[in-house]
Amino acid sequence: MATETSTWQHLAKAKVDAINGSIPEKWQLSSIPPIEEQQDVTGPFIRQFLSAEEVEITETDAIDIVEKTSVGIWTAEEVTTAFCHRASLAHQLTNCLHETFFDAAIEDAKQLDKYYAQHKAPIGPLHGLPVSLKDQFHVKGVETTMGYIGWINTFEGRRGTGKEKVFESEMVKELRLSGAVLYCKTSVPHSLMTGETVNNIIGYTTNPKNRNLTCGGSSGGEGALIAMKGSPAGFGTDIGGSIRIPAAFNGLYGLRPSAGRMPYEGMANSMDGQNSVLSVVGPLSHSVASLKLLVKSLLIQQPWLHDPLCNEIPWRQDQEDMMLHLISSSKLAFGILKHDGIITPHPPVQRALGMVVETLKTLGHEVIDWDPPSHKRGYDIIMNSWTYDGGTDIHNALGLSGEPMVSQISGMYGKKREEASASRISANNIAKRNYQKEYMEYWNSTAHMTATGRPVDAIIAPLAPFAAARPDRYKYYGYSNIYNTLDYTSCVVPVTNVDKQVDVVNESFQPVSEQDRDTQEDYDPEIYHGAHVAVQLVGRRLQEEKVLALSEYVGGAIAEAKETRSSHL
Amino acid sequence: MATETSTWQHLAKAKVDAINGSIPEKWQLSSIPPIEEQQDVTGPFIRQFLSAEEVEITETDAIDIVEKTSVGIWTAEEVTTAFCHRASLAHQLTNCLHETFFDAAIEDAKQLDKYYAQHKAPIGPLHGLPVSLKDQFHVKGVETTMGYIGWINTFEGRRGTGKEKVFESEMVKELRLSGAVLYCKTSVPHSLMTGETVNNIIGYTTNPKNRNLTCGGSSGGEGALIAMKGSPAGFGTDIGGSIRIPAAFNGLYGLRPSAGRMPYEGMANSMDGQNSVLSVVGPLSHSVASLKLLVKSLLIQQPWLHDPLCNEIPWRQDQEDMMLHLISSSKLAFGILKHDGIITPHPPVQRALGMVVETLKTLGHEVIDWDPPSHKRGYDIIMNSWTYDGGTDIHNALGLSGEPMVSQISGMYGKKREEASASRISANNIAKRNYQKEYMEYWNSTAHMTATGRPVDAIIAPLAPFAAARPDRYKYYGYSNIYNTLDYTSCVVPVTNVDKQVDVVNESFQPVSEQDRDTQEDYDPEIYHGAHVAVQLVGRRLQEEKVLALSEYVGGAIAEAKETRSSHL
Repeated sequence: MATETSTWQHLAKAKVDAINGSIPEKWQLSSIPPIEEQQDVTGPFIRQFLSAEEVEITETDAIDIVEKTSVGIWTAEEVTTAFCHRASLAHQLTNCLHETFFDAAIEDAKQLDKYYAQHKAPIGPLHGLPVSLKDQFHVKGVETTMGYIGWINTFEGRRGTGKEKVFESEMVKELRLSGAVLYCKTSVPHSLMTGETVNNIIGYTTNPKNRNLTCGGSSGGEGALIAMKGSPAGFGTDIGGSIRIPAAFNGLYGLRPSAGRMPYEGMANSMDGQNSVLSVVGPLSHSVASLKLLVKSLLIQQPWLHDPLCNEIPWRQDQEDMMLHLISSSKLAFGILKHDGIITPHPPVQRALGMVVETLKTLGHEVIDWDPPSHKRGYDIIMNSWTYDGGTDIHNALGLSGEPMVSQISGMYGKKREEASASRISANNIAKRNYQKEYMEYWNSTAHMTATGRPVDAIIAPLAPFAAARPDRYKYYGYSNIYNTLDYTSCVVPVTNVDKQVDVVNESFQPVSEQDRDTQEDYDPEIYHGAHVAVQLVGRRLQEEKVLALSEYVGGAIAEAKETRSSHL
Repeated sequence: MATETSTWQHLAKAKVDAINGSIPEKWQLSSIPPIEEQQDVTGPFIRQFLSAEEVEITETDAIDIVEKTSVGIWTAEEVTTAFCHRASLAHQLTNCLHETFFDAAIEDAKQLDKYYAQHKAPIGPLHGLPVSLKDQFHVKGVETTMGYIGWINTFEGRRGTGKEKVFESEMVKELRLSGAVLYCKTSVPHSLMTGETVNNIIGYTTNPKNRNLTCGGSSGGEGALIAMKGSPAGFGTDIGGSIRIPAAFNGLYGLRPSAGRMPYEGMANSMDGQNSVLSVVGPLSHSVASLKLLVKSLLIQQPWLHDPLCNEIPWRQDQEDMMLHLISSSKLAFGILKHDGIITPHPPVQRALGMVVETLKTLGHEVIDWDPPSHKRGYDIIMNSWTYDGGTDIHNALGLSGEPMVSQISGMYGKKREEASASRISANNIAKRNYQKEYMEYWNSTAHMTATGRPVDAIIAPLAPFAAARPDRYKYYGYSNIYNTLDYTSCVVPVTNVDKQVDVVNESFQPVSEQDRDTQEDYDPEIYHGAHVAVQLVGRRLQEEKVLALSEYVGGAIAEAKETRSSHL
C-alpha cells in the first residue's frame, strides 16, 4: 500500500491538502494577508468576505439563532451555509480546522427544515444550530486524527476496526438528536497536552485577534473558530485547561464541568485510561446563555443511559433559581486568588482581576482574599498523573508515522521515562483525595470570614499568568489545572484586552523563583497589545448550574461597568 | 518499648484479651456451648440471657426503634444498654467484635435523652439508634486494627500521627449528628479481601445461624452481630461483595450503593488509592425500611460538603415515588440471571431464584432471561484491579508485625508479584469502561424484549453460588463482584433457608469446568441445612431509591408467599 511506504511528510501533505481542498472554491480566499500586515482577522476583517445576511446570521449568539430557527424565521440551511462559509474563511486565516463536512451538514439542515415544515415545531432544543467539535469527537463520514499523522486513515491509530468513518461518539449522537447541525472538526495539538495548538498536519493555529499569539489549546481550533464567528458554539475537552485556555485567549466564555456531568463516551483521547484526573468535555461560546443552552440540551438526552461514567444529574433548575434569587436579593461573597504562590500574573491579568473585584464591590458584594492549601501540592499531583505512563502513549502515537514531537510537549514527554507503578499511582490518588478534602474544608471555613455567613459563593482566579501566550512560551499550567486536580466547576469570563498604554511592565517586580522571573519577562506590551484577558469563576464540584448563573451575572456586570466607564470618557 | 520487642502472638493475645475483657463482667457468659452442641445461637438461644425488656428492644427493627426513641417512649439509654448487652453475648458466641465502647455509648445516649427532655424533639432522624460499624471506621476513644496485628497501637500502621484514637471518619461524624449511638466495631478479615472473616487477632467469626459456616466477609462481624440482633443496623463496605455476602449469609438486607453516593472519607482501607473499582460503604439491617432510614439520614447531612468523592445527589423522593407508583399501578419486568456462565449455583440458590421468579410471575410481573455480555470479562477486569500492586499493601501491613497471612487470601496475595504498570492499569480502565458501556446497552436493549416496553426494572441474580460458605471454601466471587465492576446498585434480599430434605445434591450435574465441579462438590445438604439463602436485586448505577423500593416490594412478596404456602400446609 502506498501509505505504508510514504514518509510522514507525504502523509501530512496529503492530509492538509485534503483539508484545505475541502473548502469549496467559491469560499477560497485569493490571498491571505501576512501576519505583519493584518494581525487581527476578526470582526471587520473577516466580515468583508461575507454578505450582509451571512454577517447577520453568523454574528448572532447561539441562543438567539435557536430562537429564530425554532420558529421558522431562519432556515437551518441558510444558517448552516453561512457558518460553513465563515468557518472556511476562519480556517484560511488561522488554520483552525481538521475536518469539514459541509455537504453533509447542509443535507442535515435541509432535513431539519423539512421536519419543521411538516411539524411546525423544532426537532429539539438545538434545532438548526451549527455546532463545531474539537477533533476528538468521532463523526461519521470523516476521520479523527487528533493531530497525529499516524492516525490518518485509521480509527485511533488502528486499522480494520470497522469503526473508521462510521462510528460516532455518544455526544455526537445526542447533539444530532437535539437538532444541532455538525459541520466541522477543529484543530488540536497532537497529544492534547499543551496550551497551544500545533501539529505536523495542520501546522500552527494562530490567535485571530493577534496572529502573533497562540489561540490556546488544546481546544485551540474551537477558540479561534468561535472567536471569528465561524461557529456560534462548540465543544472542547479539558484535563488541565484545554477548554478554558482557548476560551480565555479568544474572548469567549468556556465551561469546564466536573467529571461525570457531560458524556465523554466514545471519544478519542490521549493517555486514555488514566483515571486519576479525568479529561472532561464542555462548551465554548459567546455568552453564558449559549453555554447553558448546550449543557441543558445534552442533559435532556439523559446521557447517563449511554455513558457509564456519566452521573444521573439532570439540569437542576432549583439550583439555578436559588442562585438567581441570591443574586437578585442579597449580597454575594467571592474569594479572590491574586497569586497562586508559584507564578505572578502579568500586569494585564492583574488589572483584569482588579476590574472584577472593583465591579463586584461597587455592586455591594464582598470579596475576600482566597488563601487556600498550597497550590504547589495540587500542581504536583496533576503533573504526576499526566506522566504516569512516562510518555508511552504519546511515543506510540508518534511512532506510528515516525513524525517528530512538537516542541511544546517535549519538556514533559520528550524523553521516554519509566512508567509509574501501581503503588505510586495509588499514592498519588490518595494525595489527590487528601488535597481535595483540605481544599473543601478551607472553602467550608470561609463561612466564618464572610459577612453573608455562607462560605464564598465562588472563587475569582486567573486562568493563566498571561493573556494569550506567545508561541512556544506556554510553560505554566498551575492556574488552570489546579481546578482539574480539585475537579471543580470553572467558567471563563472575558474581562478586557491588553492595553499597552495601561498594562506597562512592572519594573519593580520581585520574582519568587527563576520560573516566575522567566514568565514575567515574557510579558511585552507591544506584542500582547489587544490580546484578550479573562478570569475564571470557580465553583465546587458538580456546581454547573450555580457557576453558570454567577458567570452570567459577573460577566454582565463587567461589561456594563466597561460601558459606563467608556461613556464617562 | 515492650511492644517493639513482642512477638505478634503476644500482641494479638493482649489485644484479644482487651477486647474480650471489655465485656462487662455481668454480661460475660459462664460457658459457651461447643458448636457441635449448639450450632444455631440466634433467636431462642441468645434470648435466654436477656430480660424480657431487652428482648423486646433488641428484636425491634431499626426504623421502629427510632419511632419510639423520637417520641420519648424509649430512652436512648435503655435502648443502647440493651444492645450493648446483646452485642456482648453475640461476640462471645461468634467472635464478631473488634472494639467495644459501651460506656461512651451509654454516656452519649444519656446526652440524647437530656436533649429530648429539654426539646421534646429528637436531635436527628436516628435519635437514639445504636449503629454498629465495621472496623474500618475510625471512632474516637478506640483504635482501628482492621484485623492487622501491626496496626495495634497505631493509626493505620503508623505511629505519632496525632490521629490515634482521636480522629473520626466523616460518616462517623455524620451519624453522630443524626443522633445515632455508636457502641462497637465489628470484625473483618485482615486485608478485607475475602468472603470470610478471619484474622490473627480475633480468630474466626462464625455464622450464628450455623456456626460450622462462615458469617461471610469482609463485613462479616456486622452480618453476625445484626443476625443475632446485637445491633439493629450497621455499616459495612463492599469492593466485591463485602456488604452483600454477610447480608446474604445472615438472612439480612444489605445495600451496595454505587460509588460516590455515600461518604467513605476518612476510613481505613486496604490497597487505598486503587481507583479503578472503588470500595463503597453501605448499610445492613433487618428490613429495607431500615436501610432506607440510614441512607436518607446520611444524605440529609450533605456528605458531599465533606467528602470530595461524594456526589451531590440528595435522596430523590421523586424517583422512589415513581417506582412505588409503577409497583402499585402496573406490571414490572425483571431479568433473571440463572447462571453466569462460569459457576453453577448450588441447589438451594437455584431454588431461591425459582421462588423469586414464581412469586413475581404470580403477582403478574414479567421475568425474562438475562443474557448479558460475558461475565468472565467483567470478572477478569475486577480481579486485575484487586491485584494491581501485586500484594504490596497487604504484605506491608502483615510485615509490620510479622504475622502470617490467613489462608483465605493466600491464593491471590500469597506470593508477592510485580506491580502493574501505568499502561496496564490504563488498559484495564478502558476495558472496564467498554464493558460497562456494553452492559448498559444490553440493559437498554431489553426494552425490545419486555411487554412493558421499558428496559427491565431490575435484575434478579444469585449473590454467591452457595448459601453461607464452608470455612476456607469461598473461592469464587463472580456473582457479587460483577456489580462492583459495573458499579451497579445492588440490594441483597433474603429468600429462604437450606432444607436438606428439599435441596438435595444434583446427581445429574454436568460441570462446565473443574472449578465449577469443585464448587458444586462443596455442597453438602447436611452441613448447609438451615443456612440462609438470598438473591440480589440489581439496578443501574446510582439507582439507590429505585432499588430499595423494589427490594422492599420483592422481599415483602417473598415473605408473604412463604406465609401463604405454610398456611396451606
